[in-house]
Amino acid sequence: MATKWVYLFDEGNRDMRELLGGKGAGLAEMTKAGLPVPPGFTVTTEACLAYYSAGHTFPEGMWDQVLSAMKETEKKTGKGFGDPKNPLLVSVRSGARVSMPGMMDTVLNVGLNPETVQGLAELSGNERFAYDSYRRLISMFGRVVKDVPGELFDEVFDAYRARTEGGGDTDLTVDMLKEIVAEYKAIYKRELGQDFPDDVYQQLSEAIEAVFMSWFGNKAVTYRRLNKLPDDWGTAVNVCTMVFGNMGEESGTGVAFTRDPSTGEKHLFGEYLANAQGEDVVAGTRTPLHIEELQRANPTIYSQFLEVAQGLERHYRDMQDMEFTVERGKLWMLQTRSGKRTARAAIKIAVDMVNEGLITKEEAVQRIEPSQVDAMLHPSFDQKAKDEAISRGDLLATGLNASPGAATGVAVFDSERAMQRAQAGEDVVLVRPETSPDDVGGMLTSRGVLTQHGGATSHAAVVARGNNLPCVAGAEDISVDTERRQFSVDGRVVKEGDLISIDGTTGEVFVGAIPTIDVDFAREQNLATLLSWADEIRRLGIYTNADYPRDAKRARELGAEGIGLCRTEHMFFEEERRPAVVGMIMARTDEERQKYLDELLPLQRADFEGIFEAMDGLPVTIRLIDPPMHEFLPDREELIEEVTRLRCTGENPELLADRERMLRVVEAHWETNPMMGLRGCRVGLMMPGVTEMQTRAIFEAACRQAKKGVDVHVEVMIPLVSHVNELRIEREALERVAKEVMAEEGIEVDYKFGTMIETPRGAITAGELAKHAEFFSFGTNDLTQMSFGFSRDDAEGKFLLDYVERGILPQNPFQSLDQTGVGKLVAMAVKDGRETRPDIELGICGEHGGDPDSIHFFHKVGLAYVSCSPFRVPVARLAAAQAAIEEKQGATFRDK
Amino acid sequence: MATKWVYLFDEGNRDMRELLGGKGAGLAEMTKAGLPVPPGFTVTTEACLAYYSAGHTFPEGMWDQVLSAMKETEKKTGKGFGDPKNPLLVSVRSGARVSMPGMMDTVLNVGLNPETVQGLAELSGNERFAYDSYRRLISMFGRVVKDVPGELFDEVFDAYRARTEGGGDTDLTVDMLKEIVAEYKAIYKRELGQDFPDDVYQQLSEAIEAVFMSWFGNKAVTYRRLNKLPDDWGTAVNVCTMVFGNMGEESGTGVAFTRDPSTGEKHLFGEYLANAQGEDVVAGTRTPLHIEELQRANPTIYSQFLEVAQGLERHYRDMQDMEFTVERGKLWMLQTRSGKRTARAAIKIAVDMVNEGLITKEEAVQRIEPSQVDAMLHPSFDQKAKDEAISRGDLLATGLNASPGAATGVAVFDSERAMQRAQAGEDVVLVRPETSPDDVGGMLTSRGVLTQHGGATSHAAVVARGNNLPCVAGAEDISVDTERRQFSVDGRVVKEGDLISIDGTTGEVFVGAIPTIDVDFAREQNLATLLSWADEIRRLGIYTNADYPRDAKRARELGAEGIGLCRTEHMFFEEERRPAVVGMIMARTDEERQKYLDELLPLQRADFEGIFEAMDGLPVTIRLIDPPMHEFLPDREELIEEVTRLRCTGENPELLADRERMLRVVEAHWETNPMMGLRGCRVGLMMPGVTEMQTRAIFEAACRQAKKGVDVHVEVMIPLVSHVNELRIEREALERVAKEVMAEEGIEVDYKFGTMIETPRGAITAGELAKHAEFFSFGTNDLTQMSFGFSRDDAEGKFLLDYVERGILPQNPFQSLDQTGVGKLVAMAVKDGRETRPDIELGICGEHGGDPDSIHFFHKVGLAYVSCSPFRVPVARLAAAQAAIEEKQGATFRDK
Repeated sequence: MATKWVYLFDEGNRDMRELLGGKGAGLAEMTKAGLPVPPGFTVTTEACLAYYSAGHTFPEGMWDQVLSAMKETEKKTGKGFGDPKNPLLVSVRSGARVSMPGMMDTVLNVGLNPETVQGLAELSGNERFAYDSYRRLISMFGRVVKDVPGELFDEVFDAYRARTEGGGDTDLTVDMLKEIVAEYKAIYKRELGQDFPDDVYQQLSEAIEAVFMSWFGNKAVTYRRLNKLPDDWGTAVNVCTMVFGNMGEESGTGVAFTRDPSTGEKHLFGEYLANAQGEDVVAGTRTPLHIEELQRANPTIYSQFLEVAQGLERHYRDMQDMEFTVERGKLWMLQTRSGKRTARAAIKIAVDMVNEGLITKEEAVQRIEPSQVDAMLHPSFDQKAKDEAISRGDLLATGLNASPGAATGVAVFDSERAMQRAQAGEDVVLVRPETSPDDVGGMLTSRGVLTQHGGATSHAAVVARGNNLPCVAGAEDISVDTERRQFSVDGRVVKEGDLISIDGTTGEVFVGAIPTIDVDFAREQNLATLLSWADEIRRLGIYTNADYPRDAKRARELGAEGIGLCRTEHMFFEEERRPAVVGMIMARTDEERQKYLDELLPLQRADFEGIFEAMDGLPVTIRLIDPPMHEFLPDREELIEEVTRLRCTGENPELLADRERMLRVVEAHWETNPMMGLRGCRVGLMMPGVTEMQTRAIFEAACRQAKKGVDVHVEVMIPLVSHVNELRIEREALERVAKEVMAEEGIEVDYKFGTMIETPRGAITAGELAKHAEFFSFGTNDLTQMSFGFSRDDAEGKFLLDYVERGILPQNPFQSLDQTGVGKLVAMAVKDGRETRPDIELGICGEHGGDPDSIHFFHKVGLAYVSCSPFRVPVARLAAAQAAIEEKQGATFRDK
Repeated sequence: MATKWVYLFDEGNRDMRELLGGKGAGLAEMTKAGLPVPPGFTVTTEACLAYYSAGHTFPEGMWDQVLSAMKETEKKTGKGFGDPKNPLLVSVRSGARVSMPGMMDTVLNVGLNPETVQGLAELSGNERFAYDSYRRLISMFGRVVKDVPGELFDEVFDAYRARTEGGGDTDLTVDMLKEIVAEYKAIYKRELGQDFPDDVYQQLSEAIEAVFMSWFGNKAVTYRRLNKLPDDWGTAVNVCTMVFGNMGEESGTGVAFTRDPSTGEKHLFGEYLANAQGEDVVAGTRTPLHIEELQRANPTIYSQFLEVAQGLERHYRDMQDMEFTVERGKLWMLQTRSGKRTARAAIKIAVDMVNEGLITKEEAVQRIEPSQVDAMLHPSFDQKAKDEAISRGDLLATGLNASPGAATGVAVFDSERAMQRAQAGEDVVLVRPETSPDDVGGMLTSRGVLTQHGGATSHAAVVARGNNLPCVAGAEDISVDTERRQFSVDGRVVKEGDLISIDGTTGEVFVGAIPTIDVDFAREQNLATLLSWADEIRRLGIYTNADYPRDAKRARELGAEGIGLCRTEHMFFEEERRPAVVGMIMARTDEERQKYLDELLPLQRADFEGIFEAMDGLPVTIRLIDPPMHEFLPDREELIEEVTRLRCTGENPELLADRERMLRVVEAHWETNPMMGLRGCRVGLMMPGVTEMQTRAIFEAACRQAKKGVDVHVEVMIPLVSHVNELRIEREALERVAKEVMAEEGIEVDYKFGTMIETPRGAITAGELAKHAEFFSFGTNDLTQMSFGFSRDDAEGKFLLDYVERGILPQNPFQSLDQTGVGKLVAMAVKDGRETRPDIELGICGEHGGDPDSIHFFHKVGLAYVSCSPFRVPVARLAAAQAAIEEKQGATFRDK
């Protein structure tokens, strides 16, 4: 049987989005529901794809089917396409599976030529209207189908308008419009070397082809990449009988939402313009009525429309975004679709609709994009103020969107001064070439951080994300001069104390202040309700990554059910501990090292006490020291510089001797590829006493809190295991310490020992590892690095983003788990681990733990929990619930 | 049924090595064959293991079985254990599955006490002999079973000996021996606070236990680690009726081989000492007869022994190493086993035995350890001269055995001078703190290379291995001072021009010259014969890694059947090309880069022309550029130093500006983890033109050679692919270039495009990759690095060797493939790759390609070829044949 390329509106329905596009399915559904939809038909997305694969040729049979559909449409309207006596005009519009507003092309009034325009004039009794329609056809067709620059038409039009008294569109006379038509045709001929086609079928055919072509237009391609939409969907083409809102005051056109898309309030929201076509509303030359004012202006039309709108919302069980036209008092529905809305509105509407009995809790949970929850949790710029700033030219640069949220404050170029000015009550944005552990104090008292260098895992980015601090990193266009306390970009200089604004969600850097809108999670009642429904539904536990008691507390407020990753290295980075840490690293004997470890023990213990208290009753997973030792030592390159300088000047030989000694130590610890060097469990195995001290601190803290009545659940995590023996030996040594401490303290606490699965070999041999691990926590960051052989520090700056841009990688695998590759390792390890130890606890604590797509994968693969940064906890709760619902529905993939 | 812990010699046979140990199985087999073996029995290795797992207690039933076996032995000998009238004496000896010479303990003459010694004296009519035996028992028992320091006994013995006229053992009188016995007992009592046991069963029981314990003695553990033998084999204990070679001139003891173990010549080889026990031969106080001299000295005994020896060789079908004792004219066989032999002898014997019809070609091939072939291919020190050097104290240090072979020459501390002195005809050993590409010239004209820093993959090591140049790397004990042209170690100074010797096979560094023994492959007829048999048997192809025509030629002579890896980066390292390479990297535009690429094109083409010519008729696999770009740029740290110094002094501002600019470029290319940064196919994708230039050079060279009649087979290999799109895009671009060139040249050549599988993700997604690859070559070095998360540059120096030493890893996974982890990835990729493309060509080109254990794995997993450095080709040919034989035999693992 021949392929069916064309569907009349009364042949489709809402479930045929993939084939008919969103608009086509909507028109079909409305037609089916008996609503007033102008007759017409849809050319399928498959036809579009076939057009491309046939090398830009309509697939066999398609045009014939278009012709028959036109015949049907003529029959239904009683008009004839190209018939001068009673001409049928049609619109030709794109319609992809999801709405891509303004990204693709539309041609209106197809069917006009010198004869039919006369017929239209006679039939409508409105010659002005007929020629107005004709000139619109020529300019749209020229622009859209033939790439004639739109300005050429606009110039002519503006010139005529300038000659009228009112200066408006409606002030143009019929003669003027006729002259415009003539001039447009002349432009068309001049630009293209051919006449504007009088053959209405040629118009139709070329318009359909133009819509097909627009699928791979620049705008559409960019939009799809930004929204992660696939290229292989194609677009449908809707051919629809023209109805006219520009046939006098009893005519008009409007767009409306069934609820307020900004707030979610339940009332009609939209605009209506009498005696106009759709493009006039968009053009903004006349001010439209608010849709509710229509009630007074034209109660008949209003009530007609209100009824249809309410019916549509009930029918679709979602807030609708509608386009309609009134032609001489008769309402025609041209489009309906689920309306776009702000995050806040989306959540309110979903919760309201559950309360109205319109949708279920599951549906409400499914309707919210996790990114909408995320957006609600960060301060953002007032959009209007931001747009104004952009139009003022205040956008200085765009860097990496390293940590979301918006911040405004005075630029300060030094951590010390940032703290001072912040304490003095100023809002500060810390600006640095890049940050180091010494800057943490300054960062945490600032509103936001801006760095010139560094990627998404740079120190600045990591600290900022962990502290919910907006951060733009690696804004390489700015040049920071810390000595002069200023940065410059394209000759423009921003001095310390000047106001700047940064948007960590987008990476934008502005000069000047932009007002921000803050969020108070506790007061977001609708969100709390929605998330409580998510909690009822989800199976995955949601843990958090928290290194400090305050983070633990905050995460708990946001719904975290445990700590999946408590890193212990920050405890080594703190300034007052550095001498002991450096001493520990430089120690020449085990005894000497032990002296420094003894200094560190009470400090670490105190850290853990606070965390256990904050997580009373919930599990706390503590990872033993992980980074390579040189991270705790001074920078090698700076030392080389200092030593060279001191040698050169000959001054201060004592300092030189000291620095030379330090340099030797640093060189001894220096590694070519530190990410794969002496770190993780290797430190525990090679530097006796360090992890024993940590374990002692953990269990002393646990026992002491337990004695105070805190319900403690300790999980000790051994990182970077590649071979089962590493785990076995470390665990045996540490469990011995744990038992020793519990015996000393005279109390037992609930504890587990486990490992991170973060090297490919760890994943491959998980069955072996499970013999010695009561839990696995997947460290998907490192696992991704080593599986791809991508050093994140290097790759993101050097090629990874380019890879994504060029489509070499479908996504940044550090943001969303690479399910094909890394995911396969995770799935293998889950299976093998469980085979060895059926009750093994399985979680994930990489950054992917907060990414919705990855969460779906982790749900499917059967993990017990995901752990993410505190501020991703609400997002993760929602995503986990959505994953559970989809599983129940048996969906095989997530169709966003 | 109770476990059988004890086997009489007539209950076992040669196939029971695992249970009875090598010696026990040998004694049993000889007993079975009716040869004269003194009656006795073997306590099994299982008993030893049971002893350990029961916490150092004999397993249940064992001792009773020993007692019954003793009864049987008494019956067979007609003697009684502890019977003063006719005392039975026994030896108690260890006997593991494989021989561990001198590593474990032996006690002789068990069964003597004040009564039985009298009986022995009477029965033998030789009181001197009886007390000599008794004093031997006390000292051996004291030393071996009770850890009494042997010197205590030796001092007494030496003192008595000094009092005699002759000063020899046999000069001691009976009374002296009685006094010695008394003094030995006093020492025993003083040291241990207990009397020497008179209870002969206590003697036996403690002696057996001592043998068990010696399995975990330091010496034995060290030996096993060095020889990669497992700890869980345990040792058997052989209890054997004593026979006495020290009962007069018609008695004696000897050890002999059926063929010469140094040369393989077919004649008896060994030593015989009349009127002596075995330990006297070892002690070296008397000079034994060469075994062939026995023919004149005692033709009866000689002919008896010769017949037995020949019979044993025929029986075992291998050269035998035998111990025997003659007691009053009667021959007793105490041990037989396959004899150790030099590499050269092993090969000659194997080939001879095939020619004698004694063994098959397969057996000959199986008998040779691949390491023996390797040893034959490198010059080595004359062992005696080396031992003398060690005893002189000339061993200065031991570094990493980075590239095998021995070299002697004058130490030179600079590459330039090394070339000059070498051209002047001197043998040079280049000594450097570490080497860089600038040193290659000096290295290649030297006899060997010694570096203070750097591991097994340091520049020095890699270049040396690739050029068969002996190299000791990372000899951290020496301190090289290039300015003073000397190195020092423990205060000892070696100046330029002083003679030194290095052994790259062991890592030893000597002062002074040690004569070396060279090898000429072409003249090793036996080896050639053996390898030709291996070639008939093996299924795996043996390719080579060769970057230069001369390497290709050499490898071909050694039997290589193709090039599996031709690296192209050396072509970028060569001095005269550096400006173009640096220019290419620093280029700001694609056009600028193209200019430099155009300069490089003819140079690369010339490189390839030579290689295609050398490999006429064989495949040549060329890997496109792989290392990160910064490797081609100056050293970052040196630049920082230089810039700092220039800034400080203020002189030469032009030079400073130039260096600052260079430093900026270096910084821009600098990577935190270069191993996982912008390298491999990523360079091709991110730096347009580079791999296109390489492909053009390859195909221009191929076409031009083809026109000259060379049979060219090009395989272009795209490295470091993680995602199928990387491969697809690179391949499409490069195949386009290839076709272009062939069209230009007007000739087609045979070619393939393929990829390296060297990232874990590459292996996991091999099924996808195979769609775009006609071949896979496993890059197991990188695959090992990324699977474990071990950066080889860092790990080997910092923890890996320690890991192996401590048993955390069973072996260095960079030397022998980690079959459990990395091997699983290889197996997956093979399976998935073949599923997608059944005729895909599969090979491996990592260093593991030359490692015999790994070769067995690659055979099993079904690869088509392994590729290794030219000098490993013969080794690989042999190992591949052995793998094929074992497969045929259905062996599931390789039992060395």
